[in-house]
Amino acid sequence: MVVADDFFLSGLNKPGNTSNAVGSRVTPVNVNQLPGLNTLGISAVRIDYAPYGLNPPHTHPRATEILVVLEGTLYVGFVTSNPANPAMKNKLFTKYLNPGDVFVFPEGLIHFQFNVGKTNAVAFAGLSSQNPGVITIANAVFGSDPPINPAVLTKAFQVEKNVIDYLQAQFWSNIG
Amino acid sequence: MVVADDFFLSGLNKPGNTSNAVGSRVTPVNVNQLPGLNTLGISAVRIDYAPYGLNPPHTHPRATEILVVLEGTLYVGFVTSNPANPAMKNKLFTKYLNPGDVFVFPEGLIHFQFNVGKTNAVAFAGLSSQNPGVITIANAVFGSDPPINPAVLTKAFQVEKNVIDYLQAQFWSNIG
Amino acid sequence: MVVADDFFLSGLNKPGNTSNAVGSRVTPVNVNQLPGLNTLGISAVRIDYAPYGLNPPHTHPRATEILVVLEGTLYVGFVTSNPANPAMKNKLFTKYLNPGDVFVFPEGLIHFQFNVGKTNAVAFAGLSSQNPGVITIANAVFGSDPPINPAVLTKAFQVEKNVIDYLQAQFWSNIG
Amino acid sequence: MVVADDFFLSGLNKPGNTSNAVGSRVTPVNVNQLPGLNTLGISAVRIDYAPYGLNPPHTHPRATEILVVLEGTLYVGFVTSNPANPAMKNKLFTKYLNPGDVFVFPEGLIHFQFNVGKTNAVAFAGLSSQNPGVITIANAVFGSDPPINPAVLTKAFQVEKNVIDYLQAQFWSNIG
Amino acid sequence: MVVADDFFLSGLNKPGNTSNAVGSRVTPVNVNQLPGLNTLGISAVRIDYAPYGLNPPHTHPRATEILVVLEGTLYVGFVTSNPANPAMKNKLFTKYLNPGDVFVFPEGLIHFQFNVGKTNAVAFAGLSSQNPGVITIANAVFGSDPPINPAVLTKAFQVEKNVIDYLQAQFWSNIG
Amino acid sequence: MVVADDFFLSGLNKPGNTSNAVGSRVTPVNVNQLPGLNTLGISAVRIDYAPYGLNPPHTHPRATEILVVLEGTLYVGFVTSNPANPAMKNKLFTKYLNPGDVFVFPEGLIHFQFNVGKTNAVAFAGLSSQNPGVITIANAVFGSDPPINPAVLTKAFQVEKNVIDYLQAQFWSNIG
Repeated sequence: MVVADDFFLSGLNKPGNTSNAVGSRVTPVNVNQLPGLNTLGISAVRIDYAPYGLNPPHTHPRATEILVVLEGTLYVGFVTSNPANPAMKNKLFTKYLNPGDVFVFPEGLIHFQFNVGKTNAVAFAGLSSQNPGVITIANAVFGSDPPINPAVLTKAFQVEKNVIDYLQAQFWSNIG
Repeated sequence: MVVADDFFLSGLNKPGNTSNAVGSRVTPVNVNQLPGLNTLGISAVRIDYAPYGLNPPHTHPRATEILVVLEGTLYVGFVTSNPANPAMKNKLFTKYLNPGDVFVFPEGLIHFQFNVGKTNAVAFAGLSSQNPGVITIANAVFGSDPPINPAVLTKAFQVEKNVIDYLQAQFWSNIG
Repeated sequence: MVVADDFFLSGLNKPGNTSNAVGSRVTPVNVNQLPGLNTLGISAVRIDYAPYGLNPPHTHPRATEILVVLEGTLYVGFVTSNPANPAMKNKLFTKYLNPGDVFVFPEGLIHFQFNVGKTNAVAFAGLSSQNPGVITIANAVFGSDPPINPAVLTKAFQVEKNVIDYLQAQFWSNIG
Repeated sequence: MVVADDFFLSGLNKPGNTSNAVGSRVTPVNVNQLPGLNTLGISAVRIDYAPYGLNPPHTHPRATEILVVLEGTLYVGFVTSNPANPAMKNKLFTKYLNPGDVFVFPEGLIHFQFNVGKTNAVAFAGLSSQNPGVITIANAVFGSDPPINPAVLTKAFQVEKNVIDYLQAQFWSNIG
Repeated sequence: MVVADDFFLSGLNKPGNTSNAVGSRVTPVNVNQLPGLNTLGISAVRIDYAPYGLNPPHTHPRATEILVVLEGTLYVGFVTSNPANPAMKNKLFTKYLNPGDVFVFPEGLIHFQFNVGKTNAVAFAGLSSQNPGVITIANAVFGSDPPINPAVLTKAFQVEKNVIDYLQAQFWSNIG
Repeated sequence: MVVADDFFLSGLNKPGNTSNAVGSRVTPVNVNQLPGLNTLGISAVRIDYAPYGLNPPHTHPRATEILVVLEGTLYVGFVTSNPANPAMKNKLFTKYLNPGDVFVFPEGLIHFQFNVGKTNAVAFAGLSSQNPGVITIANAVFGSDPPINPAVLTKAFQVEKNVIDYLQAQFWSNIG
């Protein structure tokens, strides 16, 4: 039996806990939290940022995101993929956002938001999938379980193995 | 040449003007305002409600809506279509929403939000289309240009012609 | 075991019973009647109209409709949504249809057919979904279960409460 | 400027000319005849059959078809593709249809309708694409322009070259 | 529990057995062989051709195919459907392909590959569906189970019944 | 005028030039190289790997990839996104692939292939989009134009600024 509560969720007024390594917290409202979203092609998030808090570079493999800032000042950006036009390859698009500003992060592209103000920041965002997924780049690359073979990462990032060892160790001690 | 401003819009911090017949205002952020949304399958709105203001019964022909309340108390609802199960036909699902509450209005269904508090209310919503469309039921039925033939409406609403004349006249004088 | 009968249904040659308040009857052939339509993205209906019978203003939340008239003369129309171009807002498009005439009702828009002749009329239509849904506007707005709060409807339709009471009462006594 | 006539077409009451080699005629109503169907995902056809007329085996590469018989008696069928279950490979599903009977031909499968009565037959059908396409098997295989190399066809049909020559010649003299 | 092997399949280095009537073998890698493809919209095949072997005219009802030749020389082609432009109806597009050549067979169109060299040929192809389906024209038309009524086929192919009898018999003795 | 060459491309038999920092080369066959792929939902690539060559961690924002190894031995893997089940978060799935082995990289997930043999390796892959896009993680994160602010990256990767400076410098001198 379908009831109104299948389409309802409360609690997005409460700040997320930003006491973590990156100083931000994403509170999701997708089909895992709100079953009524099934087959409906949309979801939402609240994002809280401590001062200098970062929603680190990540992608949503199945969704575009439209974000609106409620409080604070965010420095946001995304990096393009490799298009037909080589002049547009890996271009970084950035913007400073203040309350009431809206920004779009196209599906699958790496993007981030950084609180550059001295106060907390808050944003809401809609995502074009009931189950958008999120891939936090640093965690997926340096903190996967099990770890990616360092030989892969030294070649990918063009650095010595000790740098990769350091990056993988940092992840496991600080973020994991 | 694509630039960051193609993905940016400002001004959603400003309350919409609710000095109108229904006491509400929808400020859209879709592909018509923000060209970077093209092909990306999402858009957003800010909705302001004066005390006792109403976002009147309407549908989005191409989108589901996920709404979050920022301020005030809203009485919201949607009516189901005629499903295979007759017991679910034209069922009204309603909920009182307070700040931080989220509600979903499935694609194409008639829905409304009513500010039942003594203060202004504000909500943000995401919609699962770059161009969701909106059909305000009262306006489309009683205020179309040209008007729908009263013979159609008297039969549809099962009332005398003078009631339809009154409804069409009200629309043209008060809302139009 | 799949068999030919999974793709078969009979009876669309029989006139639907139009002895009801609006003088029309829709006989559906969608996935609820014909399971072989599952995942195939199409369905059909037969529509019968008594003299002056009306298929009242309604929407299909998940389908476009293409209708062909077999018998009689229909006055048909649809109302646009609110597009980017304000000059096209709530525009009514209408046409008189005779046997062999075809008309298209785009997905999600409010539309109707009215038998303006002195004889029965018959039409067939295809719909672009295996499960298109139907929202009869008058029934959903004034005859939902439970009823929509009259405070919502008086503001939406800009009329006194007694008019709304009358409309809701008519629905429950005449159509329900 | 959009007008009502963009969604309108007349003439489907007129029998198609069946004076041809197969004794049938399809009158299409798709986006090529009715521009208002653009982006709307549906189209329709009227099909006329002389006595013993055949709508020969064909596929629609981009659409499922739902057919309703108006007059006459049709023997209809489709052949399955090669599914995971080998017991279902190239299975023929058939049915005799009389007025008011409905049958579904799933997207991309080879299907036909054959008038097995002594009178004309008429059917209407909806198709799940604004531009469904049609591939008449005999014409595409034996009557393409230029012809397919007979070495391909002798091997495909496991017959001598003179049989293929005969089939290709018949097509060019009788149907082309 | 999802594991890496859900996304893995071995054996595409082994030539398929081409000792059959048409001298070719398709080794499929779709969701039936590789469950991890579920919902992912793609599949692949290896195709082996004996000298003068043929992948006979067929369609994929749910997929476009992109083919690359690894070894040998193939004569390939597809036939268009009946488009709006009659000059393009049933046009045959062909090409001779050598190793490293790529060719595209659009969704739902009849196509074939013929090994015109004196050595074996090998190709790999990607298909735009996890479950593309395949309809081998000769088998579906002349070798269905049960057989299509010869009256249908004599009219479709414009030949005497004994030719159809011969074609149906050949199929059952040589290919079936 | 459409011609057969619109669906044709040659040259995939030629090894790509792997004399670069990562020792691999992707030769794309998408709608930018082969216009006939437009609207058809598929593309392909050839990938060459020098001994110890790496196709570094990357995503395709709009496509799943199905890869088959022709020569050599590859160590391949992908990292999951953050699913509802936390036990599956950032899980690395890997496999050693030999000639004839097939592996699937689901849409939008970070994946890589590493030639662990002493000889060249070659693979072909199909992708479920005419324009899949590619985001090479290291290049997008440390080599974007302009560079991402080091304050973002130090926090994301939980390292000192000199490590980020080093990573960004390496990219610009070795890969750019």
